[in-house]
Amino acid sequence: MAKAPILTPQAEDFPRWYQDVLAKAELADNGPVRGTMVIRPYGYGLWERMQAEMDARIKACGAENVYMPLFIPESYLRREAEHVEGFSPELAVVTHAGGKELEEPVVVRPTSETIFGEFMAKWIQSYRDLPLLLNQWANVVRWELRPRVFLRTTEFLWQEGHTAHATRQDGAAYATRILLEAYEDFMVNVLAMPILVGVKTRRERFAGAINTMACEAMMGDGKALQMGTSHELGQNFAKAFDIDFLDSGGQRQLCWTTSWGTSTRMLGGLIMCHGDDNGMQVPPRLAHVQVVVVLVRDEDGAGDAARSVVDRLLAAGVRARLDANTATSFGRRATDWELKGVPVRVEVGPRDLKEDKVTVVRRDDGSKLTVGLSTVTEVVSVALETVQTSLLAAASKRREARTVAVDTIEEAIEVAQSGFGRIRWSVLGESGEELLATKAITVRCLQNPDGTVPTEIDDEVVAVVARAY
Amino acid sequence: MAKAPILTPQAEDFPRWYQDVLAKAELADNGPVRGTMVIRPYGYGLWERMQAEMDARIKACGAENVYMPLFIPESYLRREAEHVEGFSPELAVVTHAGGKELEEPVVVRPTSETIFGEFMAKWIQSYRDLPLLLNQWANVVRWELRPRVFLRTTEFLWQEGHTAHATRQDGAAYATRILLEAYEDFMVNVLAMPILVGVKTRRERFAGAINTMACEAMMGDGKALQMGTSHELGQNFAKAFDIDFLDSGGQRQLCWTTSWGTSTRMLGGLIMCHGDDNGMQVPPRLAHVQVVVVLVRDEDGAGDAARSVVDRLLAAGVRARLDANTATSFGRRATDWELKGVPVRVEVGPRDLKEDKVTVVRRDDGSKLTVGLSTVTEVVSVALETVQTSLLAAASKRREARTVAVDTIEEAIEVAQSGFGRIRWSVLGESGEELLATKAITVRCLQNPDGTVPTEIDDEVVAVVARAY
Repeated sequence: MAKAPILTPQAEDFPRWYQDVLAKAELADNGPVRGTMVIRPYGYGLWERMQAEMDARIKACGAENVYMPLFIPESYLRREAEHVEGFSPELAVVTHAGGKELEEPVVVRPTSETIFGEFMAKWIQSYRDLPLLLNQWANVVRWELRPRVFLRTTEFLWQEGHTAHATRQDGAAYATRILLEAYEDFMVNVLAMPILVGVKTRRERFAGAINTMACEAMMGDGKALQMGTSHELGQNFAKAFDIDFLDSGGQRQLCWTTSWGTSTRMLGGLIMCHGDDNGMQVPPRLAHVQVVVVLVRDEDGAGDAARSVVDRLLAAGVRARLDANTATSFGRRATDWELKGVPVRVEVGPRDLKEDKVTVVRRDDGSKLTVGLSTVTEVVSVALETVQTSLLAAASKRREARTVAVDTIEEAIEVAQSGFGRIRWSVLGESGEELLATKAITVRCLQNPDGTVPTEIDDEVVAVVARAY
Repeated sequence: MAKAPILTPQAEDFPRWYQDVLAKAELADNGPVRGTMVIRPYGYGLWERMQAEMDARIKACGAENVYMPLFIPESYLRREAEHVEGFSPELAVVTHAGGKELEEPVVVRPTSETIFGEFMAKWIQSYRDLPLLLNQWANVVRWELRPRVFLRTTEFLWQEGHTAHATRQDGAAYATRILLEAYEDFMVNVLAMPILVGVKTRRERFAGAINTMACEAMMGDGKALQMGTSHELGQNFAKAFDIDFLDSGGQRQLCWTTSWGTSTRMLGGLIMCHGDDNGMQVPPRLAHVQVVVVLVRDEDGAGDAARSVVDRLLAAGVRARLDANTATSFGRRATDWELKGVPVRVEVGPRDLKEDKVTVVRRDDGSKLTVGLSTVTEVVSVALETVQTSLLAAASKRREARTVAVDTIEEAIEVAQSGFGRIRWSVLGESGEELLATKAITVRCLQNPDGTVPTEIDDEVVAVVARAY
């Protein structure tokens, strides 16, 4: 009889598979207050690596990090009309503090848009202060009615960038640069996720933005997940917060601002993009544990050999970890590391060692290679590169297989049951979009036919439609 | 006539000098909600470096990072009696969220002690799960009546470590290890701050701890600042949260827990320890800008020369930045970089360049060296090492000069007006401590006569007394 599966199979119940992975791979738990989450060491290690890789790209785009307060006066949110309307239903409000009722309640930030607006106005005097390029890593709170760990939580961790520019063109160019050079580059080359980039329809736009661009990914079940957004805010926040500057001719002008964000939601996307019935799959460039060296049995010097393999891998710059926990069965440990999605496993046991060999196992295809001890570092390095490439290839292949170009709204609805539909925006239009919404299908983004981000919405522009998380 | 000073001189008004530095060096602003702060790019860059250096040390001590929720059910805090008593007056409470009044209000974490307790209880089953060594980087909120940026703010950033152990000895050893190997090592060798380590008296202990150890530093005005604490919590939290384990004999036992923290307060300590009437002084090992290369005038190829100096410094692993902002006067820029405390300044101008030379200026003593272009990298590297050493030496010298061993409580009161008093704890005692408190003087820590951390309070133990921030 076959062993009972450790996880609910994906084909049986994808959302339950996801919950199983969170628990069994020790990624995260639900927090005690509804909708909050506890990110455990293995999950947080992934987030730390995401932060490091993203932070380097954001800094390479010229932005500097700051920290803005958690608490925002309620009045700030009311200054930008669409913004307050967008966020009001989700706000958490502190009414009591220091043992007293507050004269003015304060809001726990749902985003720091407004407080950046207030301080940018103070810091910007002249055209010489532009562009002002700021970013922040922080927690934000949006009260969620249907929370799901990483995907939709009452509190989440994110980075939010906020910039001010002298012209609309400069703002648009920077928002696009972040989308492509920071976000898309990270998601494709580190997370190994094929990403669609495009603009949002008016319906899907951020509250207060004049243009929202997004990175969209396909999950293992064919649904879409928004992985990051970059917004042109036009002069809306500049007007509301008096963010202005003296131009070189001595004239006072309003700034053009942008904002852009990615969050712990990317962890959910990573799990659902690469995971399989054996658990997570972490792409090697992201992994904080790229290789686990598993000691099979501590006999005949196998323990020393395993430690020496770890040392050599570490010396070669590979993020390796030793599992010498032989009190637990080898099979159980191998399964656990598969659940956690560690890209490469090196098994060191007395039997192989008699011939000076160890076994290298790839997580993606389960292939095993018995190799000489002296070559293990090279073999592992090649395997890591191969796994990185294969994960991206597999995800791309699945997305292609599940994406269909259609000509009618009826076909779009059909296709979106199991994947992405591509339909001309001139055919769909806002009324078609409204119809799709009644079937829980949304326009994920609008793209040029060649997959680039449209700068204007002409007849050729394609809408990518899907069900989404 | 002498120029008006940019900062209030320290001797005139030290607290005002501190506020001036915060503003003029563009470190931080007050946030709109009372007691909150906005950390600007230059200040946040320092905090990022603090985080990186501390995080590496904490990980070297075996702890892993996690993330716990911002919101805590009120009931959690009530479970440990002393703990709730310690924090009640400082709590911020969310009563409304998602457009409704909450059935149960939630507290914004003043520390995550209780939530760590709850989850440690879930994660620990047997002695094999111990020690459990966790850390978190997060924001916390304690409503402050007399806020001061970095030193005492309603919201601050910190790391809080929480660990569970099988025995009291293990817990004590780990709390001490963090104090010495993570905190003291970082503060002395990176921040260049001489630190006193010792234990707190019962009066100064953390709410719920059985022992609190601390790092204490002397500021430029002779007052003390607590830079970090490490607590043995005994079995108090283990009892309150059922953190227990099956020992190797199959018996259920309560864990022994610890917690330890350092915060953005260290930024305040850094400013007040090394700063002078010209501004901040950032120790080179901490500095995110170790060297600024200032282009004096962009003539005769000076711009290219300055850029090439920056490139060579960066290639040599020096964190260098170019200031080619010649629209602002050279003098003004030099003053601004002094305000920001950049340890070494390289001035590149057409006059020196005619002789293939540049000028290297140390921030600590203002000394200038005109050196050949080809040697600038080596000269700068030596200067950085020298500044690091000199800052520690200067702070140590000042502390020694302002520390006096005394035999009576009256003398202790006298000495604490301008520095630290050292008095035998057997002479002072709890009644003496109470008397000092009426003069706003506290026991900063108890030490062995040789400056080590006492493991028991015998007759030789010395109390360090001072006024404190």
